[in-house]
Amino acid sequence: MREVAVIGIGMTEFGELWNRSFRDLVAEAGMHAILDAGIEGDEIDAMYIGGMSSGRFIGQEHVGSLAVEVAGLEDLHIPSIRVEAACASGGVAMHQGYLAVASGMYDIVVVGGAEKMTDVVGAEATNILASAADREWESFFGATFPGLYAMMARYHMKKYGTTPEQLASVAVKNHYNGSLNPKAQFKRRISIEDVLRSPMVAEPLHLLDCSPITDGAAATILAPLDIAKKYTDKIVKIRASALATDTLSLHGRKSFDSVPAAYHAAQRAYKMADLQPKDIDLAEVHDCFTIAEIMAIEDLGFFERGEGGKATEEGRTAIDGEIPINTSGGLKSKGHPVGATGVAQINEIVMQLRGEAGERQVKDARIGLTHNVGGSGGTAVVHILEVI
Amino acid sequence: MREVAVIGIGMTEFGELWNRSFRDLVAEAGMHAILDAGIEGDEIDAMYIGGMSSGRFIGQEHVGSLAVEVAGLEDLHIPSIRVEAACASGGVAMHQGYLAVASGMYDIVVVGGAEKMTDVVGAEATNILASAADREWESFFGATFPGLYAMMARYHMKKYGTTPEQLASVAVKNHYNGSLNPKAQFKRRISIEDVLRSPMVAEPLHLLDCSPITDGAAATILAPLDIAKKYTDKIVKIRASALATDTLSLHGRKSFDSVPAAYHAAQRAYKMADLQPKDIDLAEVHDCFTIAEIMAIEDLGFFERGEGGKATEEGRTAIDGEIPINTSGGLKSKGHPVGATGVAQINEIVMQLRGEAGERQVKDARIGLTHNVGGSGGTAVVHILEVI
Repeated sequence: MREVAVIGIGMTEFGELWNRSFRDLVAEAGMHAILDAGIEGDEIDAMYIGGMSSGRFIGQEHVGSLAVEVAGLEDLHIPSIRVEAACASGGVAMHQGYLAVASGMYDIVVVGGAEKMTDVVGAEATNILASAADREWESFFGATFPGLYAMMARYHMKKYGTTPEQLASVAVKNHYNGSLNPKAQFKRRISIEDVLRSPMVAEPLHLLDCSPITDGAAATILAPLDIAKKYTDKIVKIRASALATDTLSLHGRKSFDSVPAAYHAAQRAYKMADLQPKDIDLAEVHDCFTIAEIMAIEDLGFFERGEGGKATEEGRTAIDGEIPINTSGGLKSKGHPVGATGVAQINEIVMQLRGEAGERQVKDARIGLTHNVGGSGGTAVVHILEVI
Repeated sequence: MREVAVIGIGMTEFGELWNRSFRDLVAEAGMHAILDAGIEGDEIDAMYIGGMSSGRFIGQEHVGSLAVEVAGLEDLHIPSIRVEAACASGGVAMHQGYLAVASGMYDIVVVGGAEKMTDVVGAEATNILASAADREWESFFGATFPGLYAMMARYHMKKYGTTPEQLASVAVKNHYNGSLNPKAQFKRRISIEDVLRSPMVAEPLHLLDCSPITDGAAATILAPLDIAKKYTDKIVKIRASALATDTLSLHGRKSFDSVPAAYHAAQRAYKMADLQPKDIDLAEVHDCFTIAEIMAIEDLGFFERGEGGKATEEGRTAIDGEIPINTSGGLKSKGHPVGATGVAQINEIVMQLRGEAGERQVKDARIGLTHNVGGSGGTAVVHILEVI
């Protein structure tokens, strides 16, 4: 298979974008990525669009075709495919785009992700998101994602002594990082006390332990390594693209203090890239809830099991820490338009590796990792990128 | 890229299956395909699941992970990905499965498709299906698929003199074929008069010009050609897998008497296979409405533009005709569980090429084609298969 590089990135701001439609967001993110790559529209060979539930959020399935029309590329009749894996849809779209280029079937491939979540009321958004859990045995009986992740948090706390303050420290760090990101939904800094005083959503998770409902889109442009050299001299290579699954239901899992699919995706990615956790300079991880970031940095091998909370509290995952996590602000502060999230993670890592991350730039960032999870862990995708 | 073969097929019966759930259907189709291929579950490297709108039909997104749990394969943590392109979801899943094997990334890949459509009432099913059209400019204003295809039918009739009787002759042929298919939803034979006397749905399309709302699932197992030889001596090779798109909206198209995406997908497939329309022995085409089959056999190059209706009326597309079309009964009579349809088409062609189609067997069938369309033509997928 061929080596693959990211030659362009683009995204909208993330937030409650009531004056912009789904197609506005798709167009804007795609246009930024095309301009960044310096390609022409008619050089595009195929598109992959990650989206979780546009059918329910805005009454629109078939968004692969929509993206072609929005981009004005209908006369090319190029393949354009939506892929879905709940909140990992963007990461899975990246995996498919990678495969499409690596295989030799397509050269220039656009990978996009988009979700317009604020056109429904809040309770309905939670209900729609619950369609990523097991409908028959979880969401039908009232389980929602705050509830499912709260159970994981309780288990982690009991087993390892993880504290509410340690959970809160994830949110505090990510809000700080988000305050340095012009595209973030929440740019205000918060304290441990702010988190602990915020309303309880599902014990032990407070409101400020949860990522928000967000509108947004992100896009990347992929190309084979040799073609990439024509467009840019700061090439970011995809060293690994790995995907793993597990049971849809949380109750079916063998483990509740980790996300086994993420662990397995990471192991495959490290093997594919011939790298170890210590080789990674920074990572964007799937902090849909604060406990999720703690499990992520353990699943990825950055810290021992049960050490993630303490490490966060000690600042070891801050921008100037030993392994900066979620410099973008993460899902918690940057926002979580579910289908776009996995692609936006790639955007942040590419900016960092190119040295374009401004105030939140990590020094000497050369190798970055993204970690994107669907549902309570039914799907996980890990990518490793390196600037060459 | 490697050559790819279909080594197993399986499907449920199609119909109103009120006593079976979505996951029952996925399990049944998958089990049949695994048994047919003679593989063990733990030989599976990846899965692709085509599904249009399980989020709205049954409140369940994230069906890639669901399929892994249903199959009891969670301990393998294999990649399992849902792809969606409205009624072409199954065909697009096949394209992704083909790419996954051809690339060399995965060996044994399961491609499935499933939809459970009868758990909602009829009008809501039509509304959900309309999410495959342009929500902002078509379905929002009340356009449904019968209406959109009726406009194409009217245009075809005006331009070429296609008659209501010719449209009806598609339904009559496909119901006859379906009467020979034990898995078909409608097994009763009908007459031209039955069609013309059935209630008008969207002029000129009568009830019997329309495919039904259906529950069902289908699966295939793919493998690289050299590995395929270990499992079977009747190898069906994928000679071509091609996908094309167009505008999501019908009003945005350059042409209304054809489906340009299908024409372009077919041209690419013929080129990839180094074949011409005359080399094809039989085809399964996307007859969601009778007019759709007439446009399909013209887009595929089997007949000149405007000749499709006459050719059907003359029996040239019957099982014993020069190019048998929809020997399975097609969407019209076999049924149309939208996400499963593209995979079920592959099932029929493989059965025919292996000589296992019983009463509806086409003599000396060696090369078969499938044609799967999403929406009013926003996506089209064409596969060409050959028994070797």
